[in-house]
Amino acid sequence: MSKFSKWNAKQDPRTELHDVLGLTGAEVSINNLPAGVGVPFVHYHKKNEEIYIALSGNGTAVLDGEKIEFSEGDVIKVAPSVKRQFSASSDSPVSYACIQVRENSLEEYTGADAVMEK
Amino acid sequence: MSKFSKWNAKQDPRTELHDVLGLTGAEVSINNLPAGVGVPFVHYHKKNEEIYIALSGNGTAVLDGEKIEFSEGDVIKVAPSVKRQFSASSDSPVSYACIQVRENSLEEYTGADAVMEK
Repeated sequence: MSKFSKWNAKQDPRTELHDVLGLTGAEVSINNLPAGVGVPFVHYHKKNEEIYIALSGNGTAVLDGEKIEFSEGDVIKVAPSVKRQFSASSDSPVSYACIQVRENSLEEYTGADAVMEK
Repeated sequence: MSKFSKWNAKQDPRTELHDVLGLTGAEVSINNLPAGVGVPFVHYHKKNEEIYIALSGNGTAVLDGEKIEFSEGDVIKVAPSVKRQFSASSDSPVSYACIQVRENSLEEYTGADAVMEK
């Protein structure tokens, strides 16, 4: 896999990018739900933290039984053990990225990990 | 920090979400560049892979000297050593999320890490 790679947006219900992009520190999926449609199950994770980024539209997340509304641009962090279910709103489709990362795997970041060039 | 947390989109030039959301496996920044404006330096990373998700508009990434155009919905993976510089297009602003994760930190994911509930 090249040192960099790009995927072009599609309108498929779900696209998983780990293998497409050669990711090694995360899985990223792009999800498109029509209005009124939700993921048909509740799930949680053994080791992975998830970060959801709302790309367009409006949706609802049920997180350990608590209902959270979200819309384009919002970012939601969910710890591994949280029981979660994501849906589009009844009157709006929703598109979101879901990023899975290993909990506590990040060490240095930004200024402590980056090297600047002139 | 709660087991889940939400951040509401803002139009600031750059918002870093690691501390805001209590992230432990990634740093996520939300970046908004006006048309014709670019990050004013080239950088690379020691240990972190970056994943860029274009949220709106059009931009250009220069990756190890190669120019890559991107637009809303595109996802770009960049290995740590790649020298990178991101800009908005001359005629369009761009908004993107930048996700920093430790290279090779992901182990099991999706079906191998998730537990389904009825």
